Amino acid sequence: MTPEIQIIGLAGLPEVRPGDDLAALIVEAARGQGMSLEGGDVLVVTQKVVSKAEGRLVDLREVKPSPYARELAARMGKDARLLEVILGESRRIVRQEGSVIITETRQGFVCANAGVDASNVGGGEMVSLLPEDPDRSAEGIRAAIAKELGVAVAVIVSDTFGRPWREGHTNVAVGLAGMSPFLDYVGQADPHGYVLRVSTMAVADELAAAAELVMGKLSRVPVAIVRGFEYGQAEGTARELVRPPERDLFR
Amino acid sequence: MTPEIQIIGLAGLPEVRPGDDLAALIVEAARGQGMSLEGGDVLVVTQKVVSKAEGRLVDLREVKPSPYARELAARMGKDARLLEVILGESRRIVRQEGSVIITETRQGFVCANAGVDASNVGGGEMVSLLPEDPDRSAEGIRAAIAKELGVAVAVIVSDTFGRPWREGHTNVAVGLAGMSPFLDYVGQADPHGYVLRVSTMAVADELAAAAELVMGKLSRVPVAIVRGFEYGQAEGTARELVRPPERDLFR
Repeated sequence: MTPEIQIIGLAGLPEVRPGDDLAALIVEAARGQGMSLEGGDVLVVTQKVVSKAEGRLVDLREVKPSPYARELAARMGKDARLLEVILGESRRIVRQEGSVIITETRQGFVCANAGVDASNVGGGEMVSLLPEDPDRSAEGIRAAIAKELGVAVAVIVSDTFGRPWREGHTNVAVGLAGMSPFLDYVGQADPHGYVLRVSTMAVADELAAAAELVMGKLSRVPVAIVRGFEYGQAEGTARELVRPPERDLFR
Repeated sequence: MTPEIQIIGLAGLPEVRPGDDLAALIVEAARGQGMSLEGGDVLVVTQKVVSKAEGRLVDLREVKPSPYARELAARMGKDARLLEVILGESRRIVRQEGSVIITETRQGFVCANAGVDASNVGGGEMVSLLPEDPDRSAEGIRAAIAKELGVAVAVIVSDTFGRPWREGHTNVAVGLAGMSPFLDYVGQADPHGYVLRVSTMAVADELAAAAELVMGKLSRVPVAIVRGFEYGQAEGTARELVRPPERDLFR
């Protein structure tokens, strides 16, 4: 038996706008490519289109920065209105140095700029925020597809994060529905009888990373289908992927 | 045009032993699955089989722990001989707390236990070390396949690392040949004309993560072929993925 996974990009989505039914657009884009979603597929959807559909957009021209945001922005050489938005999406600052600001977001993620992003949003002075509750966003898409097509898929909302120690960004899961974020080898014996003690794989992050390989940033492929990955249907949330601060040696 | 990638696990490798010609075993395993490697394939090979082929194995029964290793091991509740091996593979300790030790390895990576690992090594008291120079390991496999089959593949040596802030492990690239570890969107304009400032994707890490999805830890799939990922042939090393300590906010 050859284990094989396919990752198929959905290229035909229109520009997503606030209020759009994202699940319907995804089903339609798949049809337009002559495909149908199948039970067991993992659908990876970028945060950007989820945030757009949910209207999680801010026009910087309407933002009034606080004195603190203005002071920090001046030190960092950034737009004070953008800093105001970033701080509004943050619980606390984890690190700030030079032009870098890493915060704990309202959702609990640790990332640069609290996930606030100006790319692919429509030009001008619009920025996108992370979905209010990306697990709920994923569950909404999962449930709509189950209802529309009668198939059980898992859904991952992905975003592009940096990381300590390593250069470059990778896509990770910020929202999840229909599967556990982990595949757990703890306590299982390997072929030599050695019992693996700590091997919990963050497969939701690996699926998000895999999907990014067909997405690119410029080619308007905001959704990918991962087909052939074996997982058990389960409830699960991307919040499980966040290490509790009290167990984190790097916060 | 539908962007599509396949990830195909190679299941037929025998137990790898010191001195084995890993490239030859890979070519043979692919043939055994009725496949041939093609130009443009990315071959992801786990550190474990590379280390075995290179004889990077240590029998703990032959290790004499130093007083410092003994003291640290007692505090951590670990085997002092294992600690001795970990310290020998490390340049410095980045964090140590409870039973966790995160070091900078001789190769420059920051990871738990300096990459020293007891799973899938052959039971008993054997542990595996990271390859001395995983880029050289990758280049050796790449060159042997180019010579044997006349095709240009890229090769990634992958290992399973934890990370700050997020639970669970993911596979990352520790060795690389035949491609750049990055795909760079810096300075390109998105469809709205917004010029992306910082979007360097660590595609080598994403390829390693994608490959893990067909590998599992227990199913003896130490090699995967990623087919359909577009990249330019280039020299590249996994060391580029390591953030220089002076630019790292978390060391």
